[in-house]
Amino acid sequence: MTELLPIRDLQACCAPITREPVSVLNAESLAVSLKALADPARLRILSMVAAHEDAEACVCDLTEPLGLSQPTVSHHLKVLVDAGYLTRSKRGTWAYFAIVPGSLDSVAGLLATV
Amino acid sequence: MTELLPIRDLQACCAPITREPVSVLNAESLAVSLKALADPARLRILSMVAAHEDAEACVCDLTEPLGLSQPTVSHHLKVLVDAGYLTRSKRGTWAYFAIVPGSLDSVAGLLATV
Repeated sequence: MTELLPIRDLQACCAPITREPVSVLNAESLAVSLKALADPARLRILSMVAAHEDAEACVCDLTEPLGLSQPTVSHHLKVLVDAGYLTRSKRGTWAYFAIVPGSLDSVAGLLATV
Repeated sequence: MTELLPIRDLQACCAPITREPVSVLNAESLAVSLKALADPARLRILSMVAAHEDAEACVCDLTEPLGLSQPTVSHHLKVLVDAGYLTRSKRGTWAYFAIVPGSLDSVAGLLATV
């Protein structure tokens, strides 16, 4: 199987899906990237991380406002890191997460028609 | 349960998720809209409909290029109509599908950071 493209490569290679026919591989890659976003907790995590001081947050900042357990939040964070939306950097006891610049804009750019 | 917002209302009400914290209801609504897109066949259908003559297509135009059965394509078309991405108009034997103007731009606008 050909490897799927991560979101940062997808925008570099591809026009918006309504501008020219999307290839099978690129449709599969974009679907995987969209699936990672298509969850209310993960959308709220991205929003909270962006709004947090210095635009980064640890799992300890997120569990209470989300009302979810630490393992559940950690799982969602891992999905977002694996999909290329969040960076993870370990400092002391905690790992800190920040939005990968351009990642959400890549998805938006592939969907936008104007 | 409060009713989820369709994609056209979501953009009217809401800022991009990274600009201000997204509410629980809006995160759930956007997740539902993204789930409808997060499928390679549905992304290819939207792309094919947009590229087709007069920017509309019937299921008869889509089955062969997609390599899927008519019931499967009809199922995907129904998901896209229900989610607010496609219109459906019956003319003679066939129903014709076209992109709802602004629908993909609404999703893109909620994800974009710039």
